[in-house]
Amino acid sequence: MTGLSEVEKHRAYGGTVGRYRHGSASTGTTMTFSVFEPSGQGPFPAVVYLAGLTCDDTTFLIKAGAQRRAAELGLMLIAPDTSPRGLDIPGIRESWDFGEAAGFYLDATEAPWATNFRMESYVTRDLMTAVAVNFPIDMALVGLMGHSMGGHGALTLGLKHPALFKTVSALAPISAPSQVPWGQKALPRFLGKDERAWRSADAVALLEDGRTTTRLLVDQGLEDQFLSVQLRPELLQAACNKAGQELIFREHHGYDHGYYFIQTVIDDHLDHHFAGLTRVS
Amino acid sequence: MTGLSEVEKHRAYGGTVGRYRHGSASTGTTMTFSVFEPSGQGPFPAVVYLAGLTCDDTTFLIKAGAQRRAAELGLMLIAPDTSPRGLDIPGIRESWDFGEAAGFYLDATEAPWATNFRMESYVTRDLMTAVAVNFPIDMALVGLMGHSMGGHGALTLGLKHPALFKTVSALAPISAPSQVPWGQKALPRFLGKDERAWRSADAVALLEDGRTTTRLLVDQGLEDQFLSVQLRPELLQAACNKAGQELIFREHHGYDHGYYFIQTVIDDHLDHHFAGLTRVS
Repeated sequence: MTGLSEVEKHRAYGGTVGRYRHGSASTGTTMTFSVFEPSGQGPFPAVVYLAGLTCDDTTFLIKAGAQRRAAELGLMLIAPDTSPRGLDIPGIRESWDFGEAAGFYLDATEAPWATNFRMESYVTRDLMTAVAVNFPIDMALVGLMGHSMGGHGALTLGLKHPALFKTVSALAPISAPSQVPWGQKALPRFLGKDERAWRSADAVALLEDGRTTTRLLVDQGLEDQFLSVQLRPELLQAACNKAGQELIFREHHGYDHGYYFIQTVIDDHLDHHFAGLTRVS
Repeated sequence: MTGLSEVEKHRAYGGTVGRYRHGSASTGTTMTFSVFEPSGQGPFPAVVYLAGLTCDDTTFLIKAGAQRRAAELGLMLIAPDTSPRGLDIPGIRESWDFGEAAGFYLDATEAPWATNFRMESYVTRDLMTAVAVNFPIDMALVGLMGHSMGGHGALTLGLKHPALFKTVSALAPISAPSQVPWGQKALPRFLGKDERAWRSADAVALLEDGRTTTRLLVDQGLEDQFLSVQLRPELLQAACNKAGQELIFREHHGYDHGYYFIQTVIDDHLDHHFAGLTRVS
């Protein structure tokens, strides 16, 4: 493997779940990511999954129950970490919702974060290059999804990089970080106090500014403890409606923010991506 | 709920995943267990899952991907903890393979373990009573399965309590603890030095002593790091063969000991139990 070291690898559903390390020019650190490779030769369509606050690259493949359907579909799953790790920056590990494991999938411009917290560049360049070189992936057929902070990442990176990510979906995403506490804590630290700079890290603002993508699928539990304060899907619905962005928004009575909710709807998301990607081809 | 407190509860696949605490007369401690309840009124057939060394009652429902198929089948899943916890016994937390989280699903007879380490009585009496009283379970239709140390538990408790557990299966079980290092460390401490006392905590010995159950399903990965030293399925195969115990033993090339292996075969195990239980009824 070119520039990649294997941390661990397990056979699963006829394919493999592996964890890999590589140096990232974008973050200036060693980054870790996980991949489910289905059985067969490929090249495979793929879905990149961006995890939420406090998670890492292993969370999705351990907890979401996604591999069964991915194996059936012949879909590769790629899960990056949620930030660079192990850095010696003051405050980096003080909060669970900012810094390490809370990189918000953006390229920071403010000191001391701008040097390493470049997760947009990491995901769209370094990670995708590493999988293109080392795995049997069809780079023309890649979808992007995510949960919570990773849902924000999927929506923003999906809207900004439609040539790279042909299909997009999100689970309980932070829809408008500029307007909610998690974003109002992270965005000024990463991007400065001028709110105009926040717009490229905010799905609702990106839609207002004319960005669109293919039909979005978004699922939301109605007992989600973060729904009304942090996630605010009504802002995403309104922005999609105004922008003419097609959106399938599904509400689920009784479901909360966790991985038992994700397990319940994961097959629908993989089917959404597979159908969208194979229509593209 | 009678004598039960709810620790947490999440909607999942139309049903719920919950974690519960109750006092156990057998262990003299508060015990925790987890339950997946499918949607509907019940009474439901159920499978009890016994986890392996270092695990707790949450491991199975987080990592195995079992709820999807259980929801389809209308099967309840019940996952007890792997030992009593929080006790102040010298050495209880010194080893990962003995003591806390390593109770081996037996009733200890030796001091200082005999007072609390009574996991056979806990599972077969206290746990089953708690679920019978508090959940819509059909107590005539209960299966038992487990992984590694929990596979040992499933085989031994299944062979000893056929009226309680109508179907039995195991994933990479410790087949003959009396003959392998994990057992040779735990059994004398729990049951004393006289090896005759170990026979009731050893599936191979129980088969030799005339115990049988319904058709067993056992899956084993051939890249399992514990296969030849700790698990020794050839001893189980030979004992089943000699005893006339029906056994479906499946080997899986390339699979190891972990939950990615379990995910891969979990649907087959749930189907085995459901088919066996509904044939009984």
